Amino acid sequence: MIKTKIDVCSLLKKIRKEKPIVHHLTNWVTIYDCANIVKAVGASPVMAHAKEEVAEMANIASSLVLNIGTLTPEFVEAMKIAARSANKKGIPVILDVCGAGATRLRDEKSFELLNEVKIDIIKGNASEIVRLSGENIRTKGVDSAEVEQDILAVSGWLANRFKAVIVATGKHDIVRGKDKSYIIKNGHPMMTHVVGTGCMAASVIGAFAAVSKDLIYAASSALVCFEVAAELAAKKSKGPASFKEELFDRIFNLDERTINKMQKIYL
Amino acid sequence: MIKTKIDVCSLLKKIRKEKPIVHHLTNWVTIYDCANIVKAVGASPVMAHAKEEVAEMANIASSLVLNIGTLTPEFVEAMKIAARSANKKGIPVILDVCGAGATRLRDEKSFELLNEVKIDIIKGNASEIVRLSGENIRTKGVDSAEVEQDILAVSGWLANRFKAVIVATGKHDIVRGKDKSYIIKNGHPMMTHVVGTGCMAASVIGAFAAVSKDLIYAASSALVCFEVAAELAAKKSKGPASFKEELFDRIFNLDERTINKMQKIYL
Amino acid sequence: MIKTKIDVCSLLKKIRKEKPIVHHLTNWVTIYDCANIVKAVGASPVMAHAKEEVAEMANIASSLVLNIGTLTPEFVEAMKIAARSANKKGIPVILDVCGAGATRLRDEKSFELLNEVKIDIIKGNASEIVRLSGENIRTKGVDSAEVEQDILAVSGWLANRFKAVIVATGKHDIVRGKDKSYIIKNGHPMMTHVVGTGCMAASVIGAFAAVSKDLIYAASSALVCFEVAAELAAKKSKGPASFKEELFDRIFNLDERTINKMQKIYL
Repeated sequence: MIKTKIDVCSLLKKIRKEKPIVHHLTNWVTIYDCANIVKAVGASPVMAHAKEEVAEMANIASSLVLNIGTLTPEFVEAMKIAARSANKKGIPVILDVCGAGATRLRDEKSFELLNEVKIDIIKGNASEIVRLSGENIRTKGVDSAEVEQDILAVSGWLANRFKAVIVATGKHDIVRGKDKSYIIKNGHPMMTHVVGTGCMAASVIGAFAAVSKDLIYAASSALVCFEVAAELAAKKSKGPASFKEELFDRIFNLDERTINKMQKIYL
Repeated sequence: MIKTKIDVCSLLKKIRKEKPIVHHLTNWVTIYDCANIVKAVGASPVMAHAKEEVAEMANIASSLVLNIGTLTPEFVEAMKIAARSANKKGIPVILDVCGAGATRLRDEKSFELLNEVKIDIIKGNASEIVRLSGENIRTKGVDSAEVEQDILAVSGWLANRFKAVIVATGKHDIVRGKDKSYIIKNGHPMMTHVVGTGCMAASVIGAFAAVSKDLIYAASSALVCFEVAAELAAKKSKGPASFKEELFDRIFNLDERTINKMQKIYL
Repeated sequence: MIKTKIDVCSLLKKIRKEKPIVHHLTNWVTIYDCANIVKAVGASPVMAHAKEEVAEMANIASSLVLNIGTLTPEFVEAMKIAARSANKKGIPVILDVCGAGATRLRDEKSFELLNEVKIDIIKGNASEIVRLSGENIRTKGVDSAEVEQDILAVSGWLANRFKAVIVATGKHDIVRGKDKSYIIKNGHPMMTHVVGTGCMAASVIGAFAAVSKDLIYAASSALVCFEVAAELAAKKSKGPASFKEELFDRIFNLDERTINKMQKIYL
């Protein structure tokens, strides 16, 4: 691995200036946090799931984030309608395969989404991503199980299979496209003690993908921002709740010097 | 505009003493914050949306807050049942037209509610309120777009059209009845960086409307309280999350002297 | 009443080590807090409500928490499917009868659940628990009404009637089994100013019940932990929001010495 640098800040500035709309169909547990982190980063979140309006809402948005954390079959149908509208408009669609591997429904619906609409970025923790490759891994609810597979190789295979950027989060995050990949080593263990950090990461990726055609660069920049903020937050907090409060405050106030100094990104 | 004063505190004291039930059918993003701000102000929130129980729940409540932020057609039908029960009992119904103008569904359902049940207070940001007047304004998701119309005039027209008090929030808030109006100049820009301040404002209005027949006075008092708390919170916070925490703590602890000193209300 | 001591910490350590999955079908208001408190205590929360997956999800879990706070008939059907799966696997099922007594729907569905599946722990505030005994008490929305009945006697009757452990929360909490009961006098009045402390208590009970066959002991240990954390939090906070943040941080950091020193438990 070779340490490199990416220009995270020009995208962050673009988000803060353009305030792109990030349309979500997400889960009911972390829906507030997903909206609020998108707002804190400078974009404009909108959550709408009625099948009667999702196509129209996706059409006024600059990116679409789907998350199957509390899926139902009807909800996934609304996701497909929104995604088709997003595909038509040409805006990126991010899918968080939250809990893939935990139940048959989650597996089936993940593949339905991947096969029936165009997903531009697939995001999950290591065990969820490995599950998508067809491995018979049992994920532990929505928390990541330990996986032995080589995530980098699996992500490469999936990137090819689904013509998508693969984001596999964990101690180190992998952002893998067809012919390029980054490894991000920012972040903090306290993130695993707060519900929703994974969902929020997907939403931040949604905000960055809204302002750049280069989705590998966008997803990597998003993770750097989110995880640098998490590192700063961890220094000032004494438990999961104060950590989370600091996380929002820090990402809101993130400046170029700090990001450039703290980013740990590898080719 | 002439600066004036209103007796916000006698209503606040009444809420804290009587703990009126404020029944909500609201959106899934800010539902917790709506409940919690009502609690912090001293009232008793209840969230219930099953069509089988909403009439009964509204009947034990002292006000009803409706918010179309994550509407579906079925959800709006439950709103109507609850509102009819509230109308029958004679308790005030507050409608937050969250996202009106963003999609056809939101426009249609807003008008359905306004035409089929009695709404006592209509609340929105400037662009949502202008949209209700029939202007072909495209709102930017759930965030306010810039509008050129004279909000005060539009609110007056709507107040007459729907026999309701109109609350148009923004840098300055307008509370407009048939033959009286207030302008409230409290608040802080940090409110625009937190998801749900608009929804919470509607819920606080619900708490105040539960203890006063004079809905212009109730809505204005609610906004003064909420926004004075926001000003206090902004002084002590360093980002959107610490701001929000302070906002709840401040409204919980708000006292008469502070409110009277800080209120900026105009005729 | 005789003051006694229980070994809360060995269960807490077991949770932190084994990270049991606590499956929830809960309400939409406090769903995030329920998930996050389970995480803060060291377990792994999963929220899933689709009838197509709840049986499978309950089957990978170590306990199941049901909460009727924002029930619909369909949602209760999914609860039954999950509970049957939990009953079959032999994991404990906790039912929070949130708002029982407020509407006929809540009463009916509470009894349906109690009669059609095996509930191992029934949890409510005093007025909700009294309501289950058939008393014609009107609860005040989801907040506890004052009740004159002898809660200890009513709980004993219910424990026998439903072959379950009864948890009646209030200024003092009662944990009552067939032939044993504890009274817990920890806690702080600030808990009544925050939405969701009751729901969170049920979720913490779910985490403890996941690691012990002795459900009276598990429920009592859970309440001691949660309420000792609340007492610590109240000392450091200046309103409901800072209290809540502290509550999460404190339960996350709770140590043996503090718990043993502060627990107030009576036979």
